[in-house]
Amino acid sequence: MEVYLDNAATTRCSDAAAEIMKEVLTKDYGNPSAMHHMGVVAEKYVTQARKTIAKSLKVKDKEIYFTSGGTESNNLAIKGVLAANKRAGKHIITTEVEHPSVYNVFKELETKGYSVTYLPVDKDGLVSVSAVLGAVRDDTSLVSIMHVNNEVGAVEPVSELSKMIKGNNSNVIFHVDAIQSYGKLPLLPERSGIDMLSVSGHKIHGPKGSGFIYISDKVKVSPEHLGGGQERGMRSGTENVPAIAGLGEAVREIFEDEAAYRSTLRSLKEELINALRDIDGVILNGRTDASSAPHILSVTVPGVRSEVLLHALEDAGIYVSAGSACSSNHPAPSRTLTAMGLSPQNVESTIRISLSRYNTSEDISYAAAAMRKIIPQLKKFVRR
Amino acid sequence: MEVYLDNAATTRCSDAAAEIMKEVLTKDYGNPSAMHHMGVVAEKYVTQARKTIAKSLKVKDKEIYFTSGGTESNNLAIKGVLAANKRAGKHIITTEVEHPSVYNVFKELETKGYSVTYLPVDKDGLVSVSAVLGAVRDDTSLVSIMHVNNEVGAVEPVSELSKMIKGNNSNVIFHVDAIQSYGKLPLLPERSGIDMLSVSGHKIHGPKGSGFIYISDKVKVSPEHLGGGQERGMRSGTENVPAIAGLGEAVREIFEDEAAYRSTLRSLKEELINALRDIDGVILNGRTDASSAPHILSVTVPGVRSEVLLHALEDAGIYVSAGSACSSNHPAPSRTLTAMGLSPQNVESTIRISLSRYNTSEDISYAAAAMRKIIPQLKKFVRR
Repeated sequence: MEVYLDNAATTRCSDAAAEIMKEVLTKDYGNPSAMHHMGVVAEKYVTQARKTIAKSLKVKDKEIYFTSGGTESNNLAIKGVLAANKRAGKHIITTEVEHPSVYNVFKELETKGYSVTYLPVDKDGLVSVSAVLGAVRDDTSLVSIMHVNNEVGAVEPVSELSKMIKGNNSNVIFHVDAIQSYGKLPLLPERSGIDMLSVSGHKIHGPKGSGFIYISDKVKVSPEHLGGGQERGMRSGTENVPAIAGLGEAVREIFEDEAAYRSTLRSLKEELINALRDIDGVILNGRTDASSAPHILSVTVPGVRSEVLLHALEDAGIYVSAGSACSSNHPAPSRTLTAMGLSPQNVESTIRISLSRYNTSEDISYAAAAMRKIIPQLKKFVRR
Repeated sequence: MEVYLDNAATTRCSDAAAEIMKEVLTKDYGNPSAMHHMGVVAEKYVTQARKTIAKSLKVKDKEIYFTSGGTESNNLAIKGVLAANKRAGKHIITTEVEHPSVYNVFKELETKGYSVTYLPVDKDGLVSVSAVLGAVRDDTSLVSIMHVNNEVGAVEPVSELSKMIKGNNSNVIFHVDAIQSYGKLPLLPERSGIDMLSVSGHKIHGPKGSGFIYISDKVKVSPEHLGGGQERGMRSGTENVPAIAGLGEAVREIFEDEAAYRSTLRSLKEELINALRDIDGVILNGRTDASSAPHILSVTVPGVRSEVLLHALEDAGIYVSAGSACSSNHPAPSRTLTAMGLSPQNVESTIRISLSRYNTSEDISYAAAAMRKIIPQLKKFVRR
């Protein structure tokens, strides 16, 4: 049996999304910029996907821009908004637990004359509202905070944070990396005071290489890629029509019954939590109740290195992650777990289990049974 | 009958490429950064595609970086090399006939302290070697010249130009936009003194959203997208494994017999040229012999506006382009045709016909017959 529990790293593309992609790749393959019928047909896929996505967020179609994925969305949002608002203040704020595609951009901005505040988090991975309040200054121009943490599933109170931030300084632009939360938790950017929101396709059963960014039509952002002026000048380059169509289809599938989608994930996670609570010497990090993301669980097995546990589970056909898979070949201690106060030893002994709608109760039982067997065996070899 | 003759805008994805993409999307969908088996399997697709592409250019695997397409490749090459070599001279050179993804980047660089020389072209769309020689200065740091012009199929003598440029100033970095030429004309970057080379997947029957850039390992380039450090730090973001695998497959198909691929295109183009020469009042722009690209033909029908001809051909199921489809919804007079000295009237009366390996002799006969019928009819309405 094979059980894929690394869905925060990437998900299986849905059959419907893969099917529409094949159609676009080999039949409706026109260039949307072409003036003839083949171009018109291609453009319809893009228009339809944009409409589906805009509806899911209750925003205008023209506020959705397609990108090549979450990393591009985050880079474009942060760098683009600062480039377009050069006279704005040079103080910007983010957190210690952001994904590298936000965190490393802020690190670079420090070398370019920006002053950055990195907000700490508590033991559950949550940014405190008071910390945000204390950080906002008159010259603060941008705040970027993720909605769901990719390593532990902590849900940052972005709506509340936005109210506080904008109450202190109404000029601040608020960006939210919603890559791990889109579809999985309700979040409407307008209602929540979010000016820009980044999403990736391959975390929600869409294709890799797809993603989008919501940019409020009140916010000015400069493009990064210059060229033919596609995406109303925000993102030049021939539209990736197959991937955009696949993304639109994946979004449609989720939002046709988002409540069912969420409750499926939540109940799988609860089964998993109940099973793991029975195993001696297993720590579940952060919150695990309904205030956490429905699909991510961070598990520490003190004394057992995460790679060892990962490979032992792999032998049983179970795929999980050591930390997050977002950093390629740079195994550095997890910033998130460290910021939450875990000891260096425990940071190195933590795996992430992440679920998708394609998982079943059977998957959870199988994985739990394997862990119940494997963990005590591995613990025997722990040095004391 | 439907005849697609807009292959310089985009091509049909090959069945083999679409097939491998479906496999990756729905079966081998792991994240290459994952430590488990699913990650290892995914990474193999990327490694294999990189190897296939590196072999096609006789360069090292590590000199190939995957991107989301030609526009990103051009942006990354030009902006990235200047960002990484800030102490280099501030004079840069390109031509008047570049694709917007090069031209608009140079236009922006003018606003950032760079001095730009835009080289003119002759009536065939060719940059003269002497013009290049006269332009290179001691403070010239970068030259970017396309290999095949996307609108008229002119082939710039990039190997010869490189020799002249580097003979004058050995520090100059030479970038070539090979998006319309890769596979269609032999070009080995090392032998030709090319430091960076941009390629797009969807022009060669690979998927949209795929592309790569060759960067000589002697050249330093700063990344645009920061994040997880994928592509050895040059291009962060989860690798678009399905598109990369599809691109690799498309490249494999072409290079398994590149001579046959080229001669197929060339003989289709010759058939087309012979047929069009019979039609009164039709001008073929630029060179049409073996010194031109094998797949692009620029055709002016004086007095007949290109959109009118385009739609008349569309009614007969024939798809061509008015100018190029690379500029989305910005119908501006063609820079290339204008630079070649065409009158404004003739610029507005020019279509582009572009071929692929999926075209047949039958396609050409059908299109030629349609044009033989349609053009005299449209000419009747020309005001004199």
